[in-house]
Amino acid sequence: GEMNADPEASAAARPLLTDLYQATMALGYWRAGRARDQAEFELYFRRCPFGGAFALAAGLRDCVRFLRNLPPAGHVQFLASVLPSDTDPAFFEHLRTLDCSGVTVRALPEGSLAFPSVPLLQVSGPLLVVQLLETPLLCLVSYASLIATNAARLRLIAGPTKRLLEMGLRRAQGPDGGLTASTYSYLGGFDGSSNVLAGQLRGVPLAGTLAHSFVTSFSGAEVPPDPVSIPLSSATWLHVWRHGWKRVCAHLGLGVQEPHRGERAAFVAYALAFPRAFQGLLDTYSVQRSGLPNFLAVALALGELGYRAQAQEIRRVFRTVSAQAVR
Amino acid sequence: GEMNADPEASAAARPLLTDLYQATMALGYWRAGRARDQAEFELYFRRCPFGGAFALAAGLRDCVRFLRNLPPAGHVQFLASVLPSDTDPAFFEHLRTLDCSGVTVRALPEGSLAFPSVPLLQVSGPLLVVQLLETPLLCLVSYASLIATNAARLRLIAGPTKRLLEMGLRRAQGPDGGLTASTYSYLGGFDGSSNVLAGQLRGVPLAGTLAHSFVTSFSGAEVPPDPVSIPLSSATWLHVWRHGWKRVCAHLGLGVQEPHRGERAAFVAYALAFPRAFQGLLDTYSVQRSGLPNFLAVALALGELGYRAQAQEIRRVFRTVSAQAVR
Repeated sequence: GEMNADPEASAAARPLLTDLYQATMALGYWRAGRARDQAEFELYFRRCPFGGAFALAAGLRDCVRFLRNLPPAGHVQFLASVLPSDTDPAFFEHLRTLDCSGVTVRALPEGSLAFPSVPLLQVSGPLLVVQLLETPLLCLVSYASLIATNAARLRLIAGPTKRLLEMGLRRAQGPDGGLTASTYSYLGGFDGSSNVLAGQLRGVPLAGTLAHSFVTSFSGAEVPPDPVSIPLSSATWLHVWRHGWKRVCAHLGLGVQEPHRGERAAFVAYALAFPRAFQGLLDTYSVQRSGLPNFLAVALALGELGYRAQAQEIRRVFRTVSAQAVR
Repeated sequence: GEMNADPEASAAARPLLTDLYQATMALGYWRAGRARDQAEFELYFRRCPFGGAFALAAGLRDCVRFLRNLPPAGHVQFLASVLPSDTDPAFFEHLRTLDCSGVTVRALPEGSLAFPSVPLLQVSGPLLVVQLLETPLLCLVSYASLIATNAARLRLIAGPTKRLLEMGLRRAQGPDGGLTASTYSYLGGFDGSSNVLAGQLRGVPLAGTLAHSFVTSFSGAEVPPDPVSIPLSSATWLHVWRHGWKRVCAHLGLGVQEPHRGERAAFVAYALAFPRAFQGLLDTYSVQRSGLPNFLAVALALGELGYRAQAQEIRRVFRTVSAQAVR
């Protein structure tokens, strides 16, 4: 059930998620008669990342998924195609029977503190099997722990109440690089992510702002929104709006024509769509001479129209700006 | 067919692989009556990566997959759950009808040279749709192009004949971060990858070496491999071996007991499994006093036993070492 609901996790648990040399070394052990020798691998790090004094252990859930999914039976044919053609067929028969039933994993609990030289995972079992596990477990634990550690450090710096959001999808190492980062920054103490897929597949709370493309797409000459779809009358809106607009420009010492019309239209459009969750992006043209007055005017108008929760915060900003303008 | 064969690519093409703000801005456009306004986005970069003078454009195939898979119909319910509860249901009806039939993508061909400020992609179509595409296309093109560019630069440095292999899976941003890197370093001019999944799903040629864990797992006291599974008689092997071993140690000025027995046993085990593709990992204990003599002795023995192709290269190394030892 879970695997079907989260195809990315299923993809992460593919038995051939490994380096070729794990397979060639497996053949080496098998040829030397050592496939079933007992062995133990320890996954640890030597130095804490980011110059810090701790790390968070993470990725254990993905490791367990991988171990459950390990029987490589359906993939032995592909392995045979990349190993020497004269390889003893009995080796592939051996691979077909493999599973993790003889493997024991001891692990730090997910999200717990980890320190240099103390293993995050101790994996013991038949030499051939635990060798095959080396690459996938490193891949699944290393990046997850790095991201969780970074998130925890930022949380410590920001304190317990500041809202921290991960928004790195567009710069990630491909789709799942982004999904992994979104998942484990949340585990490390972030409040949420912009990555909708992480919300859908992993339950990470979603949040976001708006983009410069939204702002620049408005020239100010757009046809006003259809009044029937606005939760207040156009006349009321315009009255409130004009009143607030003059106040804001006066406070900031700006002419009413100076701030960018298109930016203002974009903020109005956004406010109409999200009257209870309005937010602005102030630096498209000029923060002081355009973004700030446009943002404050729209926010004030929303406040006048009864969207108070949002407006209280905005009023604080507004008072600060007013005080500065008067000085 | 292709989608079924490559679940990772299918995962990459999930319609909700995007930032939340693309969805909220879509609502903003729709509320402003601008959903069907024609718009064009250009995907370009300002500076070449790695301090270079060019980049390679890559990731187009993944983009096309994403566009084909875009109708978000099955995912509108999830989007509704993360947008304000009083959002006009007509907006979600609009989303259910979306596809990319009105979208035109002009692109640099996959793998072609790209330069600053020249768009890799030009995406035109209805404003609401092309806004939704911004994050996924950036995610799919940016990392692919970065990796392909890096690979091409390394290929230029190495020249046309050197063998270049990508082996980064264990340090990648999760499973698909690794898969993306393996795929696009091959596109950029590498010869192959250690990532077995990239071989299985993307046809990337596979290669690898061996790990220190393989070497350290041998103490030298292991039971010798069962003779029936060795493609030569044990007596022949031992004769050749002892002869070569004394020569190597004499040339290097080492006592025959000095190099590590376990390392030698590991090399022998590997040679028995891969007599035509033997390779060593020399730095587990001491390159000069253990790894090199153990490696040369095994390689020479393979050469004596008729595995010539491999042995010619080894002989060159051996002659160089001998010459140095004599001096």
